[in-house]
Amino acid sequence: MSTNKEAIIDFMRTQLNHYGYEGAVIGISGGIDSAVVGKLLTEALGRERVFGLLLPERDSSKQTMTDSLLVCKELGIEYKVKPITPLVRRLGVYRMQPPAILIPRKMQEKYTANLWNRTETPYLNDLKTSGGRKNRENLAYYRTKHRLRMTRLYFEAEKRGYAVAGTTNLTEMLTGFYIKWGDDSSDIEPIMHLYKTEVFELAEQLMVPRKIIDKKPSPDIAPGITDEYALGMDYGKLDRILKKINEQTKNNTAITGESEEDVAHVKEILEAAKFRNIRNLNMMD
Amino acid sequence: MSTNKEAIIDFMRTQLNHYGYEGAVIGISGGIDSAVVGKLLTEALGRERVFGLLLPERDSSKQTMTDSLLVCKELGIEYKVKPITPLVRRLGVYRMQPPAILIPRKMQEKYTANLWNRTETPYLNDLKTSGGRKNRENLAYYRTKHRLRMTRLYFEAEKRGYAVAGTTNLTEMLTGFYIKWGDDSSDIEPIMHLYKTEVFELAEQLMVPRKIIDKKPSPDIAPGITDEYALGMDYGKLDRILKKINEQTKNNTAITGESEEDVAHVKEILEAAKFRNIRNLNMMD
Repeated sequence: MSTNKEAIIDFMRTQLNHYGYEGAVIGISGGIDSAVVGKLLTEALGRERVFGLLLPERDSSKQTMTDSLLVCKELGIEYKVKPITPLVRRLGVYRMQPPAILIPRKMQEKYTANLWNRTETPYLNDLKTSGGRKNRENLAYYRTKHRLRMTRLYFEAEKRGYAVAGTTNLTEMLTGFYIKWGDDSSDIEPIMHLYKTEVFELAEQLMVPRKIIDKKPSPDIAPGITDEYALGMDYGKLDRILKKINEQTKNNTAITGESEEDVAHVKEILEAAKFRNIRNLNMMD
Repeated sequence: MSTNKEAIIDFMRTQLNHYGYEGAVIGISGGIDSAVVGKLLTEALGRERVFGLLLPERDSSKQTMTDSLLVCKELGIEYKVKPITPLVRRLGVYRMQPPAILIPRKMQEKYTANLWNRTETPYLNDLKTSGGRKNRENLAYYRTKHRLRMTRLYFEAEKRGYAVAGTTNLTEMLTGFYIKWGDDSSDIEPIMHLYKTEVFELAEQLMVPRKIIDKKPSPDIAPGITDEYALGMDYGKLDRILKKINEQTKNNTAITGESEEDVAHVKEILEAAKFRNIRNLNMMD
């Protein structure tokens, strides 16, 4: 697929205008995906038609806020900080987890790593929403935050007649690395056709701040868990194998140059992700 | 499509077991759709594996609660009442609308009708999220409630390893009569292949309480607004025309026996609903 920024910007401008959106709201997380989509939006619509929302909560890392503010300032867009902590608390989510605020970050990281390491395949358990009561509670816990963020983004967008811009990329889509009815739920997905490594290329083209490009991608759902830790592989290797598997499926070519174990791991993720990607079971198909 | 209850029950049991769900959570609204899906779930899984959530808020009608309790008792399922009012308040939604609690229902209905009648095509404005700032605020206002309900249902379901059962029917799907990323967002949609009039037939087969079958379907989003008022047509006529339009599209047959005005109205809704049904604009297609 194309990392040609002009083609993407043209697609965004044409579609958003065609459907009568007066602008776009984007949740800024301090990560590379929202920085790239934010930049694409300002080029497509002009920065005065782009509105940023920062939606931190009790367990967000401090880095998240610092980096998000950097991105907003760099983009020159209007933005608001709206912590979702009170909503999360109201739902009773925090009661399920120790308050992080009083515990040093390092100990939090250790706590989370222990939870994750209790099973050998934490991400597969996540994809299947399995792994026993405690594991399921952890899943319910962090997924709720993403759904509340989505709700908050739409509340802001619909008041203004704006679209909600999503930031899901192809690697996340294929591997199910998103929250169903959370960060996957938007009006436009400008980078959904791009592998994560292609998002990095695009970020260079768009001159996203170095600091944002260089930081380790993290879902910021639990202390110490980076994307690559959760997925069990770095993005370079993951994308390479995903492309080879795609080739294999399409043209029946053999996969070479990768360890059997790695390929098996990725195929296991893809198989489990199908479950999430179905979205709705129904009798229409 | 089939209103054969055995086929639907078999589909539900097979699929939910296949994907490892240990049961299902359903939001009970007091309407016919959730009563029917609730009944199908108890027959597919046994009532001890079905959990009901009643999610009223400040502006819900009293009838909603009474009817929802009736349905839960009739189904014999475990249920909880969890008002979403504090969440809606926290988001700032209520600040946008006068508090209904102090105003007699009749006056509320008049207020809402005035809002609706300000434009000639309120439902088309809804489908397009258009109609000026005030109208858009009203849309943001009531849609938020549905998204919070969805979030609440998932929080309950994921803790238990249950599926969220949706209650969207085919008439709603085609006409866009649902909240994007709200009541359309679930794990299984057992009646999505059925027109609303077919849901009524199924309700008779399933012996849903008379009172629930006989009440006027209403989205309970604003006082005095029934489904048929919003859609501008009764369900009998609407489904008949939807089927004829489907025939016309498939087999190029002419539409007979309906007024041109009615057919044009339904086609206008279908055209506007496409916008909502797209869900995500992206470059994958």
